[in-house]
Amino acid sequence: MTPVKFYFDFLNQASRSLYILLEASKIPFEAIPISMVKGEHLTGEFRDKVNRFRKLPAITDHGYQLSESVAIFRHLAREKLVPEHWYPHRHLGRSRVDEYLAWQQTNMDVACTDYFQQKWLVPYLQKTRPSDNAVNSASKQLEHTLNDFEELFLNSRKFMLGENISYADLSAICEIDQPKSIGYNTFKNRNKLARWYEAVREELGPYYTDVQKEFEAKLKLTNDAAQGEKQAQAVKQ
Amino acid sequence: MTPVKFYFDFLNQASRSLYILLEASKIPFEAIPISMVKGEHLTGEFRDKVNRFRKLPAITDHGYQLSESVAIFRHLAREKLVPEHWYPHRHLGRSRVDEYLAWQQTNMDVACTDYFQQKWLVPYLQKTRPSDNAVNSASKQLEHTLNDFEELFLNSRKFMLGENISYADLSAICEIDQPKSIGYNTFKNRNKLARWYEAVREELGPYYTDVQKEFEAKLKLTNDAAQGEKQAQAVKQ
Repeated sequence: MTPVKFYFDFLNQASRSLYILLEASKIPFEAIPISMVKGEHLTGEFRDKVNRFRKLPAITDHGYQLSESVAIFRHLAREKLVPEHWYPHRHLGRSRVDEYLAWQQTNMDVACTDYFQQKWLVPYLQKTRPSDNAVNSASKQLEHTLNDFEELFLNSRKFMLGENISYADLSAICEIDQPKSIGYNTFKNRNKLARWYEAVREELGPYYTDVQKEFEAKLKLTNDAAQGEKQAQAVKQ
Repeated sequence: MTPVKFYFDFLNQASRSLYILLEASKIPFEAIPISMVKGEHLTGEFRDKVNRFRKLPAITDHGYQLSESVAIFRHLAREKLVPEHWYPHRHLGRSRVDEYLAWQQTNMDVACTDYFQQKWLVPYLQKTRPSDNAVNSASKQLEHTLNDFEELFLNSRKFMLGENISYADLSAICEIDQPKSIGYNTFKNRNKLARWYEAVREELGPYYTDVQKEFEAKLKLTNDAAQGEKQAQAVKQ
């Protein structure tokens, strides 16, 4: 079987969740890292040969190009051997996963991405300090969204759908890691969220911790490079 | 078979596309109109008995509550007899429909909703004139999004996937009708879009025109009521 080509950047949450799904499901794939901060996904070559949307993550599967992480997830679930628990037929589990993923796209993903951009990405790209106003406003939106997540999707059960982990859990933890990894106080007054987070982390084991380590190393490396550049500038002046 | 309960408001684009899908697929359903401008979806009763998200459209299917239009669409495709062409397995058509629906959620839907809100809904609810600034900015975003839609999703074929209409086409036409029905000049310099729009309209026939008529009548009725209220106020003063 020709392996799926998977284009990704660990700085991006959906890249991490799909990478973990591919690994945990043992789907043969060729991992092709693309640097978003260097703009490698914005080139004409990437658009023409990989992905007309110029977005990450992306796949090509036997020459078929596909974008949008939720579409890639469903494509894998249909075309490859993805264990049933990730997207279960039983008890209308698929409808529940679909409902969460749609909610995530206009709520969780917007809030986590905005906080990450205002606090980390925009300052990095523009070589400035984060704007207090922008970070405060992103922080309030995130607060609100995490409360909604707890209230609408978590319950007394171990995972969102019950005793088994699904792609909804995997996708959500990678979203939440976006602000968490740059210092956001995710679990303050959120015991239910903290319990769920630990359960998901434990269930995913090394598939998750390996990717998470690479994500954090990449954050640190990028920060250090920016810091080094600043010091070099200061010496020059 | 117990009919699906379908909660909707024709002022909302996803309510229209799912209503048309239900009708065209001859799925037995009970149509339960809910008035968004009256805030009927925001009540505690609606939250507890119908939809914990307090959003439209929503369904209950044998007591199972489901929100998010794309999740409802997939639920119907799995659980009911929906004709294959709406969400085709052939040639990875499902992956292409999924890709469009994900793109729509963060692009087309945002742009069409924002224009509709700034130009019509906010002025209606606040009993003011539309803000020129807000409408101009929404208009620019919409311009950009419709150009992307033409470039990324339309081609020389009749519908997005080829010779057969899919849910991607149905969902997109209902989005585009949102700004179009309140006067936005949708087809200026967009021949490809105009051709595709006509093909979709013709293929959907009365399923579409009946719903579209009700949508436009509802817009007019709401406008007339607001106008009447204004005149009554003017007489009083």
